[in-house]
Amino acid sequence: MPTIDILLPGFAIDTDQGHPAFCGVFLVRGPDTAGRSRTVLVDAAHVGRRPFLRDALAAHGLTAGDIDTVVLTHAHWDHVQNIDLFPHATLVVHRDERRYAHTPHADDWATPGWTGLLLEQLPVREVTDGEEIIPGVEVLALPGHSPGSIGVVVRTDRGRATVTGDALHFAYVARTRRNPLVFWDEDAATRSIDRVLAVSDVIYPGHDRPFRMTEAGDIDYLERFALTLTGLGPDTPGLSFADGTSRPTWTMPGVREQRALYEKNAAEIDRRISRVPRVLRPDLPGAGPARG
Amino acid sequence: MPTIDILLPGFAIDTDQGHPAFCGVFLVRGPDTAGRSRTVLVDAAHVGRRPFLRDALAAHGLTAGDIDTVVLTHAHWDHVQNIDLFPHATLVVHRDERRYAHTPHADDWATPGWTGLLLEQLPVREVTDGEEIIPGVEVLALPGHSPGSIGVVVRTDRGRATVTGDALHFAYVARTRRNPLVFWDEDAATRSIDRVLAVSDVIYPGHDRPFRMTEAGDIDYLERFALTLTGLGPDTPGLSFADGTSRPTWTMPGVREQRALYEKNAAEIDRRISRVPRVLRPDLPGAGPARG
Repeated sequence: MPTIDILLPGFAIDTDQGHPAFCGVFLVRGPDTAGRSRTVLVDAAHVGRRPFLRDALAAHGLTAGDIDTVVLTHAHWDHVQNIDLFPHATLVVHRDERRYAHTPHADDWATPGWTGLLLEQLPVREVTDGEEIIPGVEVLALPGHSPGSIGVVVRTDRGRATVTGDALHFAYVARTRRNPLVFWDEDAATRSIDRVLAVSDVIYPGHDRPFRMTEAGDIDYLERFALTLTGLGPDTPGLSFADGTSRPTWTMPGVREQRALYEKNAAEIDRRISRVPRVLRPDLPGAGPARG
Repeated sequence: MPTIDILLPGFAIDTDQGHPAFCGVFLVRGPDTAGRSRTVLVDAAHVGRRPFLRDALAAHGLTAGDIDTVVLTHAHWDHVQNIDLFPHATLVVHRDERRYAHTPHADDWATPGWTGLLLEQLPVREVTDGEEIIPGVEVLALPGHSPGSIGVVVRTDRGRATVTGDALHFAYVARTRRNPLVFWDEDAATRSIDRVLAVSDVIYPGHDRPFRMTEAGDIDYLERFALTLTGLGPDTPGLSFADGTSRPTWTMPGVREQRALYEKNAAEIDRRISRVPRVLRPDLPGAGPARG
């Protein structure tokens, strides 16, 4: 059976000066249909976690060159930026998400205009709901937070574990059933939360620790919180703390025009995809970003 | 005389799970040689500060479209990612830094392999030491932290204010005279710190509050620290705090081969620069990342 491990934990922490945006990064391993062992990364985090990601791989006896598949739950900045570390990987992304990333909306602060250039640095496999990545590891379409958000359902020996990306950022969302950040469709986002809850024994949120829902509807975390902050302390003058257990939903101002724009842009998206130069796998000895 | 304002404050905070990497972002304003008023942004921060950057511009009565020049102190991820917000701007960057960003070293975790694709989204003006951006605003070459790190010296009515980028991350570096993160040349980095100290009345560090050095050699901060953390508090189990006032220097493992590689890559760099498609200023009404 496939297994799931946390490579980098996700955090539900934030600040009033910028988003640290530490998403969870997961390692899924299991045999493919031919019995060969496969090593799948789910989400890649942003550059501020790059050295941590390399260290976490090493702690599992792996180098970046061992990753054969990188699945993106979605194309937001904090989930995608380290994909260039994995020169031997195929990028698995929902068709709608890949294409959206080439003409993101001006109001979409989580998807910079250059995101499409980044995604095309790896060979892309576009997927849709229900597709198998390896046996026992399947794509679960979870649109709403973004156009092509997906989850990854892993059939482990402890039950069905679902990596949700930001279809379910934080454990508390399993109770409020409202996505706190809607860049695409709020109703769809709520249906996606319900879908996660319906199919999962264990939930691996985008920015929180894995948890189960108890029969009473409470959150039962499976991991402890651990974080060290450097350069400040509880007595630092000017430092204050705010509760984060229920945030108001923010919906992108331009969300209503999103679907029509996306359809209108179809030809332009094809053109842009065809024009991106691949700068990875460099032919320059000793240089380049992506030596395994 | 030109003026300088803090748009986003820089922070000397860090974690053991990833770098928040909140650099300072500065607004420099003054007349050009023809007497026209100019609006210059120095550094652009990473995507996790994008909505905060827009809000800070609005608080100064500006939109992204009002920025005519974006100066990058260097091309590290946390300083460059929002340049696509400024479709009317010219990008000012040191020649060595721009070119390095097209073939970054595999060990350079702060400069992903796709950085060159990002930089070329704006028209680039390559600069070297001593060049004038507008009268009273000059480039100060500060290599060492990265190949083409620069400072920006602003001759204000309060004296010479220097935006240092990460040639001087934190105020304490003015006393240790050691750069804590060397991606290019440690000796050069120390000379650059000395150079900042020699020419500046007020120092605006890359990741700290502006300060003066007193006659006794102490640090006199000009701004108060202010930060709110959401989702945790001093009593959160598993949260700990560490001192950050003097960090050991980290030198990139591959730093010794850097200069030879950079020279060897010259032709490849030219080729890469010529091939980057510009995806900003989109011709699609209502879509695209960069409406002012």
